[in-house]
Amino acid sequence: MTHLEKSLEEISELIYQKMDSLLPDQDEGGEKRLHDAMRYSALAGGKRLRPFLAVTSANIFGVSQDSALQVASAIEFIHAYSLIHDDLPAMDDDDVRRGQPSCHVKFDEATAILAGDALLTFAFEVLADPSTHSNPAVRCELVRCIAKASGSRGMVGGQIMDMISEKTDLGINQIIHLQRLKTGELFATSCEAGAILGNAAPNLRNMLRGYAYDIGLVFQITDDLLDAEAENDKSKKRKQKTSGKPTFVSAMGEQKAREQAKILTEQSVRHLSAFGKKADILKEFAYYVLNRKA
Amino acid sequence: MTHLEKSLEEISELIYQKMDSLLPDQDEGGEKRLHDAMRYSALAGGKRLRPFLAVTSANIFGVSQDSALQVASAIEFIHAYSLIHDDLPAMDDDDVRRGQPSCHVKFDEATAILAGDALLTFAFEVLADPSTHSNPAVRCELVRCIAKASGSRGMVGGQIMDMISEKTDLGINQIIHLQRLKTGELFATSCEAGAILGNAAPNLRNMLRGYAYDIGLVFQITDDLLDAEAENDKSKKRKQKTSGKPTFVSAMGEQKAREQAKILTEQSVRHLSAFGKKADILKEFAYYVLNRKA
Repeated sequence: MTHLEKSLEEISELIYQKMDSLLPDQDEGGEKRLHDAMRYSALAGGKRLRPFLAVTSANIFGVSQDSALQVASAIEFIHAYSLIHDDLPAMDDDDVRRGQPSCHVKFDEATAILAGDALLTFAFEVLADPSTHSNPAVRCELVRCIAKASGSRGMVGGQIMDMISEKTDLGINQIIHLQRLKTGELFATSCEAGAILGNAAPNLRNMLRGYAYDIGLVFQITDDLLDAEAENDKSKKRKQKTSGKPTFVSAMGEQKAREQAKILTEQSVRHLSAFGKKADILKEFAYYVLNRKA
Repeated sequence: MTHLEKSLEEISELIYQKMDSLLPDQDEGGEKRLHDAMRYSALAGGKRLRPFLAVTSANIFGVSQDSALQVASAIEFIHAYSLIHDDLPAMDDDDVRRGQPSCHVKFDEATAILAGDALLTFAFEVLADPSTHSNPAVRCELVRCIAKASGSRGMVGGQIMDMISEKTDLGINQIIHLQRLKTGELFATSCEAGAILGNAAPNLRNMLRGYAYDIGLVFQITDDLLDAEAENDKSKKRKQKTSGKPTFVSAMGEQKAREQAKILTEQSVRHLSAFGKKADILKEFAYYVLNRKA
């Protein structure tokens, strides 16, 4: 196991424990069903890439692990809510998520809508809580940046473009814009959050943003490449994209997409030069995303 | 027109202008459809009771009108999102809201889900913005309290109990608990927000919370009474409750419900005694809610 793989696994375990301790108890009042659904989706596993970015970036600035994990949990709650709502029948209509029944299949549609709403809301309650960081200016900046990245000019904006894209032909620039919003903004803000916690200077914040913004795009391109591979080789099981949605592979072909991912990866790590050895693990992570097989 | 009616109308107009200036432009990028839907639902009218409570409570402490209106807008964005999601086919399945097509009828279901998500997220972006208040500790406390009141132990928790209640027989205490969560918490926090903006002492914050918490319940009881009246007299048009849901009237009868509303109103204004004449308009508002005909 490489140093990076060990770190990914470790953060994944720590973030599970932190989310578990933050989430409301299952037994709490008449809202039990809601708390069940929130826990079911948030704790179901997943790659925990955003928490990895937040915690690793916070480490550069010597931020306490507890602060970093708390912010990373809030970001992961937002990611979890977005998956619950994406899977709904009116959206991508996916019955399976991470090998398990989607939230609306396990519970029902109303519960899934409300569990998503509650996780999103809870993320901001956690970020604003004094236990996240002693300085309220830091907590406010986290709320503001993470809300911006998740809202109509960020993740949700990308999601509506994705819904509309099923009915229209997008050019490559529009696909890039869509994916920058849908994935890039929250990736970028995960890294930026570590810098905010560490009271980093604006130029350092922007470098980390730039790095993760590019990584978000690489992640999406390699996702499309893995989907294309699975389509060519039916032995590789992989959740299929909702048919009709434009992908990097459908828009530019496999060869070109692979080259583009490589160029973006090299571009992403150049943003890290100012951090020297302290950013080695983020560099390693960039190539891990580029070369991933799953 | 009474002093109160004039004030309600004035705040309603000011809050419209403030929300209009805060909301993203309709023409902004590929997310146009999303911004259209957000504006459609948030600006569609309504009683603006929560903004009234926030602004009037802020006035007691001499808070600048601009700060008060900004926080009141954020609360109204959350109220608007909750109505969009409540109206969805998987929830109450309402085609009409405030005399107009519901968001998912005017646009489509996916757009309505995302517009709700975006309005909720935007509320926290607005609250955390430095333009809301110069002190970040105040902004953080607003985010924390408003998130708590809106989440799984507040509004969303009440909503899931409401969904489940269609299939179960609730006793009066459970109905009270449900409505305290669904309406009471955000009512209480609207008033409390004014006190937070004014750096009020904790006991004053709690008095305003207590007042509005009771008013929330009175609002719900009078809602049920108006529904019952409309059912007896078909000439009075009123949106019907989703059948099967327990109401104060179904649980305790009209006469008892009316008495209970009166007792709660008197209890609510007793919370205001420490504020003297400054709270006269809130007292007037309590009787306005009790005696409303629409």
